[in-house]
Amino acid sequence: MTETARRPGRRPGPTETRAAILAAARDLFAEKGYDGASLRGIARAAGVDPALLHHFFGSKEGVFVAAMRFPLDPGELVPKIAEVPRERLGESVARLLLGVWDDPERRAPLVAMLRSAMTNERVAASVREFLSAELFGPVMAAHGVPALRLDAAAGQLLGLMVLRHVLLMEPLASADAEELVALVGPVLQGYLG
Amino acid sequence: MTETARRPGRRPGPTETRAAILAAARDLFAEKGYDGASLRGIARAAGVDPALLHHFFGSKEGVFVAAMRFPLDPGELVPKIAEVPRERLGESVARLLLGVWDDPERRAPLVAMLRSAMTNERVAASVREFLSAELFGPVMAAHGVPALRLDAAAGQLLGLMVLRHVLLMEPLASADAEELVALVGPVLQGYLG
Repeated sequence: MTETARRPGRRPGPTETRAAILAAARDLFAEKGYDGASLRGIARAAGVDPALLHHFFGSKEGVFVAAMRFPLDPGELVPKIAEVPRERLGESVARLLLGVWDDPERRAPLVAMLRSAMTNERVAASVREFLSAELFGPVMAAHGVPALRLDAAAGQLLGLMVLRHVLLMEPLASADAEELVALVGPVLQGYLG
Repeated sequence: MTETARRPGRRPGPTETRAAILAAARDLFAEKGYDGASLRGIARAAGVDPALLHHFFGSKEGVFVAAMRFPLDPGELVPKIAEVPRERLGESVARLLLGVWDDPERRAPLVAMLRSAMTNERVAASVREFLSAELFGPVMAAHGVPALRLDAAAGQLLGLMVLRHVLLMEPLASADAEELVALVGPVLQGYLG
């Protein structure tokens, strides 16, 4: 607990400040949605200087990813997807996202988030706005994919993962990841390529 | 309330008996799953003659559809899908299932069921076993579609509907149904045809 040891006087340490910011962020994203919540508003609700949010999380996207424990970090995914040659986009996206879902540690928060979004309209709105602004938008810009085709591709991946990992539908649940890449890669390529 | 007027003596009327059977069925499907629950066991739990279950619901499938308020009746869907020519399977299945989801009255119980399945493993097991036995199995038999391809097609439809009607992702949420049939029909045809 080096952070605690470095704590200056009675001021809250970085761990507590970070937790306070994330709690305020969760409230504000739930109340106003991703687009409606501002870094300034979150800082005010947490009683901290807005500069601290930049210091801890870099951006509003970073605050959202941390607050929702959002398991797909677009700041990591988008550059990977953007640099894939257009003709291998389907296969690469399939392999990338199957890899995320097939890792239990990364899947658990993704399933939790999907459950929340399916039962809470405000969480659904936050997730939707976040995905549009930070994942779908940049991918559309990088590869010139029409929005409806991107939605269809996302639907293919989302539904596959729900059947594979939540409903445990066989033979999908036990299928080898590369077999699935071979099966859905061409479909994603058709949508995105 | 004609049924109530026809009620003989002190015996429970058909409406009450039907409700008792469905309550027992929900309990047993949740406890044992679709495969594990028997009509005989449900009748015993409801304190009625098993013949009454046949009289009211025709089959175990009928009891499940009614008990879970399952909005896709395979007894209605499977014959429709089975009679479609193989080369138009993708387009027909897309139009059929988009039609179900686009109807708010049929969509509501489907979303409710999906929410339950996503948060309750036993409901998930019942839904999975039911779909395998009564929908996917017969469609595979009718058209000779490999199971994994059927799962992939189901995933495409499921994910599309979650994004369209639950997460309300645009432009998918506002897209015309026939535009979506044109977009995903060929994908489903690739999986099923």
